[in-house]
Amino acid sequence: MKILLAGYGATNARVAKLAEERGHSISGILVGREGKDYPYPSFMVDHDWPEADVIIDFSHPELSLPVIKRTQLPLVMATTGQKEEIIQTLNVRASELPVFFSANMSYGVHILTEIIKYSVPLLHNFDIELTEKHHRKKVDAPSGTLVKLYDAIKEQRNKIHPVYNRSDQHAARTDDEVGISVIRGGTIVGEHEVLFAGHDETIQIIHRAQSKDIFANGSIDVAEQLISKNPGFYTFDTL
Amino acid sequence: MKILLAGYGATNARVAKLAEERGHSISGILVGREGKDYPYPSFMVDHDWPEADVIIDFSHPELSLPVIKRTQLPLVMATTGQKEEIIQTLNVRASELPVFFSANMSYGVHILTEIIKYSVPLLHNFDIELTEKHHRKKVDAPSGTLVKLYDAIKEQRNKIHPVYNRSDQHAARTDDEVGISVIRGGTIVGEHEVLFAGHDETIQIIHRAQSKDIFANGSIDVAEQLISKNPGFYTFDTL
Amino acid sequence: MKILLAGYGATNARVAKLAEERGHSISGILVGREGKDYPYPSFMVDHDWPEADVIIDFSHPELSLPVIKRTQLPLVMATTGQKEEIIQTLNVRASELPVFFSANMSYGVHILTEIIKYSVPLLHNFDIELTEKHHRKKVDAPSGTLVKLYDAIKEQRNKIHPVYNRSDQHAARTDDEVGISVIRGGTIVGEHEVLFAGHDETIQIIHRAQSKDIFANGSIDVAEQLISKNPGFYTFDTL
Amino acid sequence: MKILLAGYGATNARVAKLAEERGHSISGILVGREGKDYPYPSFMVDHDWPEADVIIDFSHPELSLPVIKRTQLPLVMATTGQKEEIIQTLNVRASELPVFFSANMSYGVHILTEIIKYSVPLLHNFDIELTEKHHRKKVDAPSGTLVKLYDAIKEQRNKIHPVYNRSDQHAARTDDEVGISVIRGGTIVGEHEVLFAGHDETIQIIHRAQSKDIFANGSIDVAEQLISKNPGFYTFDTL
Repeated sequence: MKILLAGYGATNARVAKLAEERGHSISGILVGREGKDYPYPSFMVDHDWPEADVIIDFSHPELSLPVIKRTQLPLVMATTGQKEEIIQTLNVRASELPVFFSANMSYGVHILTEIIKYSVPLLHNFDIELTEKHHRKKVDAPSGTLVKLYDAIKEQRNKIHPVYNRSDQHAARTDDEVGISVIRGGTIVGEHEVLFAGHDETIQIIHRAQSKDIFANGSIDVAEQLISKNPGFYTFDTL
Repeated sequence: MKILLAGYGATNARVAKLAEERGHSISGILVGREGKDYPYPSFMVDHDWPEADVIIDFSHPELSLPVIKRTQLPLVMATTGQKEEIIQTLNVRASELPVFFSANMSYGVHILTEIIKYSVPLLHNFDIELTEKHHRKKVDAPSGTLVKLYDAIKEQRNKIHPVYNRSDQHAARTDDEVGISVIRGGTIVGEHEVLFAGHDETIQIIHRAQSKDIFANGSIDVAEQLISKNPGFYTFDTL
Repeated sequence: MKILLAGYGATNARVAKLAEERGHSISGILVGREGKDYPYPSFMVDHDWPEADVIIDFSHPELSLPVIKRTQLPLVMATTGQKEEIIQTLNVRASELPVFFSANMSYGVHILTEIIKYSVPLLHNFDIELTEKHHRKKVDAPSGTLVKLYDAIKEQRNKIHPVYNRSDQHAARTDDEVGISVIRGGTIVGEHEVLFAGHDETIQIIHRAQSKDIFANGSIDVAEQLISKNPGFYTFDTL
Repeated sequence: MKILLAGYGATNARVAKLAEERGHSISGILVGREGKDYPYPSFMVDHDWPEADVIIDFSHPELSLPVIKRTQLPLVMATTGQKEEIIQTLNVRASELPVFFSANMSYGVHILTEIIKYSVPLLHNFDIELTEKHHRKKVDAPSGTLVKLYDAIKEQRNKIHPVYNRSDQHAARTDDEVGISVIRGGTIVGEHEVLFAGHDETIQIIHRAQSKDIFANGSIDVAEQLISKNPGFYTFDTL
């Protein structure tokens, strides 16, 4: 599979390395501006592009939007930011090309969400608490993945509300609370835990990421499948 | 709800206490032999029985089989041992009465099994390892619940085989191994963990029992539902 | 060993049951007021007391203070509240009798604290985060045990401050933060976790209580040792 | 600090990268044979060496032994295999030079061992169970680190014996068993857990490695300290 990268940030650099290890090749890098030095040939997004089978895009909306508009290739879109505009623009192209979008390219995180969706109605008498752990440099909290898990739970328990701080409270927990705990330290790549606590028993479901390669590898997995698909807008649920 | 207990071992003693706390009453105890002193009126299984809404049976096949044959009441059967004969005999009565059977009355363990069944096909590239922890006095290993989890996984990954001991091995793990670890210590009531280990990410699903009350409470939950059911053979899957 | 109980709340009721199972006997119950029905003979704290080897007190300061003042027996004091007055009064009696005081009678929690004290200076480059989990009915947060752990850490890292809520923050963690997470759900008896997160490695130290019996059994363990001690004020550190 | 690497396997390649990121420089690579292409100048171990402040050696005894014999530089020795001959040879040189040896260069694993040594006598009534998890390609079991932990425990509880397989046993656990569980799957870098299980409470101490960089970084940390030390044989305990 010949991969054209859109942008060459940290994640796409890993995509390049891991794709080559998996026997694929990199046709080049689409860029918005000239001048930087890359380990692969670079191509201005508004000029001619090299031959390739698929595009993988972990860049930013300024680059991704023109990529979406001009591409004639299947497209794996993993850019975050301006989500609605990105999805709208992808939808326009989906009649001609297979396009894929996910805000989190980890297959495990996707399956975690599916498992939680499946579990919540079965465990309707259990209290739910969410915890995420990340490295000390992460500036936002809670993580986007935790928010996604919370939203998936709320679709099925629509009365819930998040509780971010219980210290100095003096009241028992109610059924509709979902406690959200955020832990930061060291270089932890990412852990998410959903705790179901019932009468004398608990069920914990924990996802642990060991390296950011799960995002790069996830996008390559998707690309491998996408290139043989009919035109359409794909997600992990429909691929 | 008036509950008739079949036998009065440790678990049925908890059923009695918890049922009363939940507002139910105990009509009496069915016994195979006279003579022992019980905190409720006892009745020989082959004589007259008191009025009741449901029977809960955590006894042994010698008592359970005549109970199944003679009962005119909905029956929650939690006896282990002679499983096939018990199920066959229950099936005969299921045309007249609602009867329920499960080898593990914990609702959480039941749901754990369901979650695992749901997860295994989604995580087909992940290695699976099973661990259980119980108190130092437990004489059998691995636990019945772990065996049930393993069987549920094998239905979907039929090439797997269990590996009970990796020490002194000198070979990498194969796809078809499922490692089974048994941990014993202190008074641990019961923990079961299914580990899915993939490329740079893991998902763990852990059930932890805090007291044996989960079995007693599970049987009362079932009884509450069973008394309003039509005749039939019920399990957690069909209730 | 003949045990005289001061008060007969939920914990002392467990002390009675567990002590008898361990081969000890209960001489009676010291009470502040007459009238209630107890399963053992009761004695007004300001009248005559029965013969005994030791007193175990899980009551409240109103009863404990006169018990401390009048006792001629070794005394295991586990009452919380009015801590300074209790300790002062115990100190007065410590010249005549062996007296013991701890706000948490669990031996495991005591040892957890010791292990943390030992670990903190060894892991000076690691970030520290604390988490506790308790049942849904617990009204205060964080738990007294977590506060005790935090204080033990602060003695060695005196610049630290607690962080109770990271949601909606937009800044990386600093060295001096200690995140404190409080999880509530179901009937969890009590878990405390200290996470040390460093560069590409973490160490977690977790204490999990399975039943409140650890407090009752802890007091009996202490009583067994205390009765052969010389007069003095004892704690877990000095026993 | 100018570092001379002995050998250039996977770990020393990481030492080079991480040392440069930390502001150190690589003087070159000591090799046993000529011919291979390295990213730094290479030097035959039996010819002239370049100027440097310290040697870091993650190679193999064939190279390490001549390095030890010829070096005039402080030496961080992390080679495994022929342990006794390596230590003997290092001891000879320790009168002239500061030399350091550890079979595991992770600082966290070292501290884990220290914490366990501290905890075992305090938790004398608790059962101990050991578990390690590694990636699916690891061919030996249990891990060297687990063996080291077991040995540290045995120094203090000298009656213990390891139990590698409890399946199909029909006996309660004895005081002197230490269960050893080995879990293999995916790309798990390395986890070690010591479980202390007592009456109604447990303490777990868990070390989790996130990347093999902990060994490379550990050796650089040691080198930074070793270069200002007097001649002698150093370990993590004495550094």
